[in-house]
Amino acid sequence: MRRRHFMSTTAGAASAITASTLAAPAIAQDRIEWTMVAPWPKNTPGVGVNAQRVADRITEMSDGRLTVTLYGAGELVPPFESFDAVQSGNADIMHATPYYWVGKSRALNFFTGVPFGLNAMELPAWLYFGGGQELWDEVYGEFGVKPFYAGSSGVQAGGWFRKEINTLDDLQGLKIRIAGLGGEVLRRLGAAVVQLPPGEIFAAMQSGAVDAAEWVGPWNDLAFGLYRVAEYYYLPAFHEPGPGLEVTVNKEKFEALPGDLQKIVQYAASSVANETLADFTYHNIVSLDPLVQEHNVQLREFSDEIVHELGRVSFEVMEEEAAGDDLTSRVHAAYMDFLRQSSNYSARMDQVSLRQRSMVL
Amino acid sequence: MRRRHFMSTTAGAASAITASTLAAPAIAQDRIEWTMVAPWPKNTPGVGVNAQRVADRITEMSDGRLTVTLYGAGELVPPFESFDAVQSGNADIMHATPYYWVGKSRALNFFTGVPFGLNAMELPAWLYFGGGQELWDEVYGEFGVKPFYAGSSGVQAGGWFRKEINTLDDLQGLKIRIAGLGGEVLRRLGAAVVQLPPGEIFAAMQSGAVDAAEWVGPWNDLAFGLYRVAEYYYLPAFHEPGPGLEVTVNKEKFEALPGDLQKIVQYAASSVANETLADFTYHNIVSLDPLVQEHNVQLREFSDEIVHELGRVSFEVMEEEAAGDDLTSRVHAAYMDFLRQSSNYSARMDQVSLRQRSMVL
Repeated sequence: MRRRHFMSTTAGAASAITASTLAAPAIAQDRIEWTMVAPWPKNTPGVGVNAQRVADRITEMSDGRLTVTLYGAGELVPPFESFDAVQSGNADIMHATPYYWVGKSRALNFFTGVPFGLNAMELPAWLYFGGGQELWDEVYGEFGVKPFYAGSSGVQAGGWFRKEINTLDDLQGLKIRIAGLGGEVLRRLGAAVVQLPPGEIFAAMQSGAVDAAEWVGPWNDLAFGLYRVAEYYYLPAFHEPGPGLEVTVNKEKFEALPGDLQKIVQYAASSVANETLADFTYHNIVSLDPLVQEHNVQLREFSDEIVHELGRVSFEVMEEEAAGDDLTSRVHAAYMDFLRQSSNYSARMDQVSLRQRSMVL
Repeated sequence: MRRRHFMSTTAGAASAITASTLAAPAIAQDRIEWTMVAPWPKNTPGVGVNAQRVADRITEMSDGRLTVTLYGAGELVPPFESFDAVQSGNADIMHATPYYWVGKSRALNFFTGVPFGLNAMELPAWLYFGGGQELWDEVYGEFGVKPFYAGSSGVQAGGWFRKEINTLDDLQGLKIRIAGLGGEVLRRLGAAVVQLPPGEIFAAMQSGAVDAAEWVGPWNDLAFGLYRVAEYYYLPAFHEPGPGLEVTVNKEKFEALPGDLQKIVQYAASSVANETLADFTYHNIVSLDPLVQEHNVQLREFSDEIVHELGRVSFEVMEEEAAGDDLTSRVHAAYMDFLRQSSNYSARMDQVSLRQRSMVL
């Protein structure tokens, strides 16, 4: 049996490898085993389950010639070392989201998505047909890795609040857990932004250590029980209109694959992109009624006054992000150009279509 | 060389087969050749190009063990005989859209989409996770074929009009080319609905034989030159909020494939579903500005008064469609249940998110 690409690692990970090794059938010489890492637990609804789908589809379509084994958060490497593991070749492939790696390049914000940015239909449109993939390849190429788009959650929820937010004054001193650029925007508007790992959000809300917290959307938020610690649910998220996921591979190992296996990796990611959005869309849709009907959650949206300010500061923050280096600046310019056209288009098409449907149903 | 599944057919098709045979490399015994048919020309932007992608991906991922050759409209069979060709085994696989086959079952309207129905994110959500695929399998199972979702154009355009439509009175006697259930709805509201094949739309508009015509969306409509024969472009289509495409295979031949090739067919369709929506989304977005800026097209939307009536009659038409048989009735009930939840959800999420973005950009 040949076990390529395995590495020495933490004790927990080592035992995981041992278990996997014992369970593995005998494998012929021309078979390849790849290790997939992810910054989320294996079975997390949405992200974890769809990481597993990518691994399974590659294995199934190749009839086991390329067998991919998924290790969830912390099983092989700490969650935020997934990128480094793929870059170094300690892992071969990961399922993740680009903005986790903004420490490598600020440009990566744009491949996950930004406040008031591209939605889950527009982001892949830009990536596949508008030059976005080429820019992403350029950013990741500097690190020896190759990215593929892997779907989106769709527009996320604005978060859970213990009291109503009616004016900009209500944001002053508000202790809120919020990720990414959205946090920076709220900080500039006077909020006290707190970084908390997912496992600590519920307790912090319950104890009053934070006043508000955003997580994902109705599906994951319902499962997380956040309706038990806050009454007001603000929809939608201004800062996550359709965050993108990635399947990223070690470039050298990808290029060493025969052509058919390269295509299998590429189209496995693309097929899971399709079904990831469907997965989130379906489960979010059927989770909203229970939150309202069974758990008496009060739905709210931010006032136009607040949204205007969120918008003004968001584009200011993005300008600053973009000014850092030439490549980020080019990514920002290309993204904003397509975003403006997308917004004009959706204002005439999707937005009107949804409004007309609400009116007649 | 083994040529499974080829059939005797028209002269044009026979010469196409000969050309293909001559060009084909020597093929080992365990290789399979599949014939794909489609009701559209091979290179049509959007539908034709993405049919080719499905064929190519199956061939590439299987390293030629399953080689798929696409024949466009009329090359092997007349466009509207594609379904019959797959059912009979004269072809193995097709790229099409279910409502073309409503003569087989009225239920098929719901798998393409209906007026004020599911959009391009919600339809696959329902199919993959909400029980829609199982119902579709049941409908197609009666004909010995197996369907896979293959993407959507996104919301289409309402059409090209030579004069403005301001009130319900303006629909009286309006000669309009419009497909599917949308045509029946307009007929009940007093329009004179005309069926025209795509190739005759332009001339009919130019001569005044029709007053209005809907085609696809900005991308295809721009390429078609419809701005040259009508000034007013109504957006969006009430009757096509996100029509779905299909990859449908002969069930017996599908089940005879080894497991890895079955998965390759399934996930090729799913990956192309992802990229088909991205393809239409990107090209529609970048085609709207040229229509307005370069060709002076006047954009309009139907008034709320008209939309209310379109809605009322649409749901009436769908009720009647559903009453025909038990299976269609079950499909209709399941579809409407998810549609109502989807509409409630998008009214809180996507619709608000798009509105807020338009406001700040």
